[in-house]
Amino acid sequence: MALRGGVDLGGTKIEAVVADEGGHVSGRARMPTPTQGGPQAVASAITAAMREAATGAGVEVQTLAGVGVGSPGTVSDGTVSHARNLPDWEDAFPLAETVGAALGVPVEVANDVSVAVDAEAALGAGRGRRSLLGVWWGTGVGGSIVVEGKRWLGRGAAGEIGHMVVKMGGRRCDCGNRGCLEAYAGRGSMERRARQLVERGEKTDLFELMEKHGRPRLTSGIWERALDKGDKVAEQLIDEAYAALGAGIGSAVNLTDVEAVVIGGGLGTRFGDRAVTRIASEMHPHLFVRERPPDVIPAELGDLGGAIGASLLVSAAPEKQVTA
Amino acid sequence: MALRGGVDLGGTKIEAVVADEGGHVSGRARMPTPTQGGPQAVASAITAAMREAATGAGVEVQTLAGVGVGSPGTVSDGTVSHARNLPDWEDAFPLAETVGAALGVPVEVANDVSVAVDAEAALGAGRGRRSLLGVWWGTGVGGSIVVEGKRWLGRGAAGEIGHMVVKMGGRRCDCGNRGCLEAYAGRGSMERRARQLVERGEKTDLFELMEKHGRPRLTSGIWERALDKGDKVAEQLIDEAYAALGAGIGSAVNLTDVEAVVIGGGLGTRFGDRAVTRIASEMHPHLFVRERPPDVIPAELGDLGGAIGASLLVSAAPEKQVTA
Repeated sequence: MALRGGVDLGGTKIEAVVADEGGHVSGRARMPTPTQGGPQAVASAITAAMREAATGAGVEVQTLAGVGVGSPGTVSDGTVSHARNLPDWEDAFPLAETVGAALGVPVEVANDVSVAVDAEAALGAGRGRRSLLGVWWGTGVGGSIVVEGKRWLGRGAAGEIGHMVVKMGGRRCDCGNRGCLEAYAGRGSMERRARQLVERGEKTDLFELMEKHGRPRLTSGIWERALDKGDKVAEQLIDEAYAALGAGIGSAVNLTDVEAVVIGGGLGTRFGDRAVTRIASEMHPHLFVRERPPDVIPAELGDLGGAIGASLLVSAAPEKQVTA
Repeated sequence: MALRGGVDLGGTKIEAVVADEGGHVSGRARMPTPTQGGPQAVASAITAAMREAATGAGVEVQTLAGVGVGSPGTVSDGTVSHARNLPDWEDAFPLAETVGAALGVPVEVANDVSVAVDAEAALGAGRGRRSLLGVWWGTGVGGSIVVEGKRWLGRGAAGEIGHMVVKMGGRRCDCGNRGCLEAYAGRGSMERRARQLVERGEKTDLFELMEKHGRPRLTSGIWERALDKGDKVAEQLIDEAYAALGAGIGSAVNLTDVEAVVIGGGLGTRFGDRAVTRIASEMHPHLFVRERPPDVIPAELGDLGGAIGASLLVSAAPEKQVTA
């Protein structure tokens, strides 16, 4: 059985695996995402991580059937642009071609959330479901829809649940619009909001905890610690996030009537069952058909889900365009 | 070529046609929806309308391949319940069986908005599109999604765009939730809101026009007349409706990235190109991918679209469950 490589390219770390077609991992490597050097440095780091994972699996990279990469940003024919979470990556960069030339194997690139949800649909929490909504709750709020067992891409950009409007005229979002789900529930927006509240004189331990643990920003772990300490600002912002997730996911379910909602992403995975319970309960009053809500379930594949999902790209047909 | 019957069951009128498989109409009949006698009286009126349409087409009803009915409410295996726009129709009533027994032909029943959008997808504004969102703007705001050329039903209730939340904590909706699109844009909610404004002392000609034209409620025609006269309350409420439609449809497009949005329904058809232009413009700032918005187009099949769409049910496989 031919082995494949899979790489999950994140804002803070690069995760690489060697896996078989059933998603069983025989080698893995992790390294920090370069903060300098732009796309070229990131491509080099991906190449290095992939070689290390292959060594761990006891195979040569050249024997792999191919390598899949899940990337943030707008992905089109192997090029990535507008990767806001990555350093100096606004313009289109030919990631598939660059990594492919370095490794000597075919490389496929697709949107990071889509491949993670694909992995859950094929091998994880969504197994056996014909329709699925994946909600990846982290720095932003990403999504992906599976319809009749297949990822629904629309014209390439489907799944942007983070930019569904939950409050007309509401909080400003990074995308330029107002009232998006992500403006309330994205970790980036939540951190900005916390800083505003501090400027207005509200008291919180969030930024003290951040410094104490040597983090450059409010990570999921910092939010969890603040909640565990009963920090009022953290509680308020997380409550607002759950309310917005409930409204946005409820709206998405009313429109698509999927069987299940899988919750993943940095915050989603960190809060796990707690997040799933809260989201299901906040979603319920918004459902049009309240007597049979969809199952809300946590992602199962954990930290490696994105990389395993990326490895599944190898046998798939090349994608024309994926936007995030 | 076998002819089929199609019936559009509305809150105020019943429209029946005889059509071929290309949707060409050879006979039609229209009668008012009975306001007394409950589902049994409605079933009798459907039967009478269908016989009259057959007579118009010069055929016996018994020679039809079958009859399709588009109905409001929750449709499941030929029974209809919770048909709020119809008189005394809360409990499940076996509509397919009752009409089938009276006419002596097989009868299929499905949701009225779904069949109207199916007709637009197959024969009207959506011809040749692989993905489509139909938005039926009338007493309520109904919807239907076409994915890969086929209606997407989810677990039976997909398409409820009217119950997507556009304003958390916002205006009360008939469904019991707050902030639904329909609470701002449904003609029923708009009329309630107009009455509230009058109670608060605001001046409007809406109700005078309604009485002058002998209407029991604020019909699409009354709204149009009030707008043409520059009525401020009417303008304000229609503006709020367009804003909510823009947010809701923008959210739906961000999630599904469909090629086109078809606008139909009583108000949508009445305002035609004017509605389409306003909705496209209100939607645009909410789009995540602003550089290639979906086409927003008016429904083409007009008043008969629902009945023609219902006739298309005849060749289709029976549906397990359709909910509205």
